[in-house]
Amino acid sequence: MNALTDHPESHRVVVVGGGFGGIQVVKHLRHSPVTVTLVDCRNFHLFQPLTYQVATGALSPGDVTYPLRSLFGSDANVRVALAEVTGFDLEARKVLLESDRRHETPKELEYDTLVVAAGSSYSYFGHDEWREVAGEVKSLESALEVRSRILSALERAELASERADRDAETTFVVVGGGPTGVEIAGQIGELTRDMLKRYFKRIYADEARIVLVETADRILTAFPESLSAKATKELEKIGVTVKVRTTVVDIDRDGVTLQSPDGSSERLQARTVIWAAGVRASGLATKLGELAHIDVDRDGRLTVEPDLTLPGHPEVIALGDMVNVRSANGGMQSLPGLAPVAIQQGAYAARLIRHQLDGRPTEPFRYFDKGNLATVGRGSAVAEIGFVRLSGLPAWVIWLVVHIFYLIGYQNRLVVILRWSISFFSSGRAQGSRIIMRS
Amino acid sequence: MNALTDHPESHRVVVVGGGFGGIQVVKHLRHSPVTVTLVDCRNFHLFQPLTYQVATGALSPGDVTYPLRSLFGSDANVRVALAEVTGFDLEARKVLLESDRRHETPKELEYDTLVVAAGSSYSYFGHDEWREVAGEVKSLESALEVRSRILSALERAELASERADRDAETTFVVVGGGPTGVEIAGQIGELTRDMLKRYFKRIYADEARIVLVETADRILTAFPESLSAKATKELEKIGVTVKVRTTVVDIDRDGVTLQSPDGSSERLQARTVIWAAGVRASGLATKLGELAHIDVDRDGRLTVEPDLTLPGHPEVIALGDMVNVRSANGGMQSLPGLAPVAIQQGAYAARLIRHQLDGRPTEPFRYFDKGNLATVGRGSAVAEIGFVRLSGLPAWVIWLVVHIFYLIGYQNRLVVILRWSISFFSSGRAQGSRIIMRS
Repeated sequence: MNALTDHPESHRVVVVGGGFGGIQVVKHLRHSPVTVTLVDCRNFHLFQPLTYQVATGALSPGDVTYPLRSLFGSDANVRVALAEVTGFDLEARKVLLESDRRHETPKELEYDTLVVAAGSSYSYFGHDEWREVAGEVKSLESALEVRSRILSALERAELASERADRDAETTFVVVGGGPTGVEIAGQIGELTRDMLKRYFKRIYADEARIVLVETADRILTAFPESLSAKATKELEKIGVTVKVRTTVVDIDRDGVTLQSPDGSSERLQARTVIWAAGVRASGLATKLGELAHIDVDRDGRLTVEPDLTLPGHPEVIALGDMVNVRSANGGMQSLPGLAPVAIQQGAYAARLIRHQLDGRPTEPFRYFDKGNLATVGRGSAVAEIGFVRLSGLPAWVIWLVVHIFYLIGYQNRLVVILRWSISFFSSGRAQGSRIIMRS
Repeated sequence: MNALTDHPESHRVVVVGGGFGGIQVVKHLRHSPVTVTLVDCRNFHLFQPLTYQVATGALSPGDVTYPLRSLFGSDANVRVALAEVTGFDLEARKVLLESDRRHETPKELEYDTLVVAAGSSYSYFGHDEWREVAGEVKSLESALEVRSRILSALERAELASERADRDAETTFVVVGGGPTGVEIAGQIGELTRDMLKRYFKRIYADEARIVLVETADRILTAFPESLSAKATKELEKIGVTVKVRTTVVDIDRDGVTLQSPDGSSERLQARTVIWAAGVRASGLATKLGELAHIDVDRDGRLTVEPDLTLPGHPEVIALGDMVNVRSANGGMQSLPGLAPVAIQQGAYAARLIRHQLDGRPTEPFRYFDKGNLATVGRGSAVAEIGFVRLSGLPAWVIWLVVHIFYLIGYQNRLVVILRWSISFFSSGRAQGSRIIMRS
C-alpha cells in the first residue's frame, strides 16, 4: 500500500504544483468525498505577481509566500507532500517522485484523477549562457539574487575610482516590456533614485540609468495603445529609458548588445541585467505530451481539451501557463499566462472532478477576463477593466486593493500594507529588506 | 590620494565592523570634527540577540537587519564602505582591503585612529567537521540554513514510513545551555508542538523530542541558581529535555554521542543538531595581536589596555567580544560577550577619540551591568536586574520591551511587534516565515 494514500476506498486526487492553479483545485475539493494529495518540490505557495518586489527590497520573502501545509492543515481529506515529481505512469495511474537521498520515502503516488499545474519558468531563447548573467524574478531565490546584484552594483559604484566603472555599475538593463519588465524597471528607477539621493555620498541620483528593452513596437502589448503610451511616459518620469523595436543579441558580464530593425547595433555597458522576456512551460508538460503522444508548442506548452483534460486521458487534467486550451469549436483559446487564468482553471478542474464523480456533464472551460493591471511606480499604474481604461493614481489604488485581496494570509496582508504605507508616505525612505545576502 | 578619504585635513577614523560596537562608535562621532569610514564585509547591521528567531521562522531576515548605509546616510562626515578587511599596516596606519575581482577598488584605507570591532563566530572546539552537520544561528545565512533544516526534518518525518526514521527526524539536539541555546530550544519546542498539532497528519505533537545539552551542572550559568532552575522547569513544560553535566563527544549526520561525567555514553539519533556552545574571536584579533607582538587567549581574544587601546598603539582601539580588557589594577575585567558590553565600549571609544583630539585624559573603561535577560518561551523569561530576580510573564515583558527598544529602525520595530502580537494571541498560529529556501 502506498504510504501517502490512507483511504484507498475514496477517490484519490493528486495535484502537482502549489501555485495559483493547484491551490484552487485543492481548495474547491476540501469538502468533497475525495482524498487529495498536493505535491510540490517547495513547501510554500509563492505569490508571483509581487515576487519582483522582493528583488527591489520593497518586500521580504516571507511577505509573498505562504506554507502549503498551513493552507490546508485543518482539512482532514488533504495531504501535503514535499517532493519532486520526476514523471508519470499514465497506464498504472501513478505519479513518480524523486527518492530522498537520506532514507526511503514513497517513490510514487497512486491516483484516480491527476491534476498537473506545474507552471513555467523563464526561457532565454536558446541562450542558456545568458541565464548566468541576466537574473530573473520568477522564483524567490532568483529574486533575492537580483536584489543582491542591484544593491552590490550600487555599493561597487560608490567605491569605484574610474568614471566608466561607475557608469557600468549604475546602469541597469531590463529585457522584456511586459508587466513584469515594466514593474521591475519602474521599481529600480525609484529605488536607485531614493537610495542615491539619501544614502550615497559619491554618486548623484541622476547618474543611475535604467533601460527597458522591448522587441515589439510598444511596451505592455496586452494593453490598449493609449495605456502603453501613458506607461512609457510614467517610466520616463522615473528615469527609465524605454527602447522599443530593439532586440537583445548578446549579454555578457559587462553589458548587453542591442539591435534595431535597421540592423544597427548598440553596446550598453551594464553590470546588472534583468531578464523578463519569454517563459517556457514546465518540463512536466513535455513529459505528459510524450506519454499521450501529442506535441508541445515552441514554448513547451501542452494542448489540452476544452475541459482541460489530456487528449485520450479524461482522468488527467493539466492547467495554468503550461497548457494551451483547445476551443469547443476546434480552434485555440488565447489565454494570457496570468494568475487569474490559473485560478479560474483550478476552480473549474475541481468542479469537473466533482461532476465526474456524480456522473454529471460539465461545460467547457471559459475564461472570464476581469481586466488587466500593471503598476509603473509609486502611485502610478495602468488598468483596463472591460471598457474602462484608467491610469495614474486611480489605477494604482485598484492594483493595490486587488493584490492585497489576492495575497494569502492575513499576517502577510497586514505586513505588506504596513510596508507599502511607510514607503508611500515616506517617499521610499522605508528600508524594507535592502540587504545583500550570501548564497 | 586614497579614494575613500576625501578630507585628508581632518582626523580620519576608520571603524572596522558594523555590529553593536562599531555603529556606536560612528553614532557618537557623527557631530565631531573627524571623518569616519565604517567598513564591513556585509551591507547591514544584524541584530544578533534576535537572529535565532529567524531560525525558527518567528521573524524574517529583514526584521532583524538594517542597512549600514541608511543608518548614517545623512551624516556628512561618515562614509560606509562594503569591503572585506584582510589585515592592517600599523606602521603606515593603513587598513588593508580585499581587492574586488571585477575592477580596481581602493585596496587600503588610511587612518589616524583605527577602531576594530569585528566580533566573533562559533567555534566547534577543534571539531571543524561538526560545522557541516551542526548548524548555528549567529549569522543571518546560517540561521536561514537552520530554519530550512528544522522545517525539512518535519516534512521528511511526515513522509517517512519507518518509525525509527520518523523519530530521528523529529529529534532536535541543541548543544550549549547559554541564553542562545535556551532560547532556540524553547522556540523549537513551541514551533514543533504548534506545527505538528495543527498542520501535520501523521505525526503527533508529542512525538517531537528536543534535547538541550550543557556541560556545566546547570543551564544559564550567568544567572543565579534559582533562575536556572526556573528556566529548566519552563523548558520541560514546553517539552525540552535538559541534560546538564553532559558533553558532546561526537556529531555526525545521523545524531550525536553524549558523555556523562561517570564516563557512560549515550547515542541520540537526530537529524537536526544546533550548535550554541563556544565562540571564537574574529581572526582580525589574532592579526592585531601578531602585529603588536601580544598573544591572544585560547578563544582568540586579544587583551587590550583599560582604555581599550592596543598595547603600544594608543591610536588603535579594539572592542567587543573579540577582546579581553585589562583592569586598571593590572587584573582582567570579566565581561560577557553581550551586546550591552559592545554598545558601552563603542560609546567609550568615541569619547576617548574626542578627548584625545582635545588633549583631555579619559578614565579607564568600566562596564555598567544593567542586568541579564533570557527568554524561555512564549510569555516566559528570566531576568536579573541588580538585586531583582524575575521569571515568567513579568520577565518576558521586560525582555520584549528591551529588545524592541534596542532594535534598529521604526519599520522593523512595527513589524516585529506585529508578528509577536499575532503569535502571542493566536498561540503560534502565525506563519511568520516558515519557508524552506534553497541555498
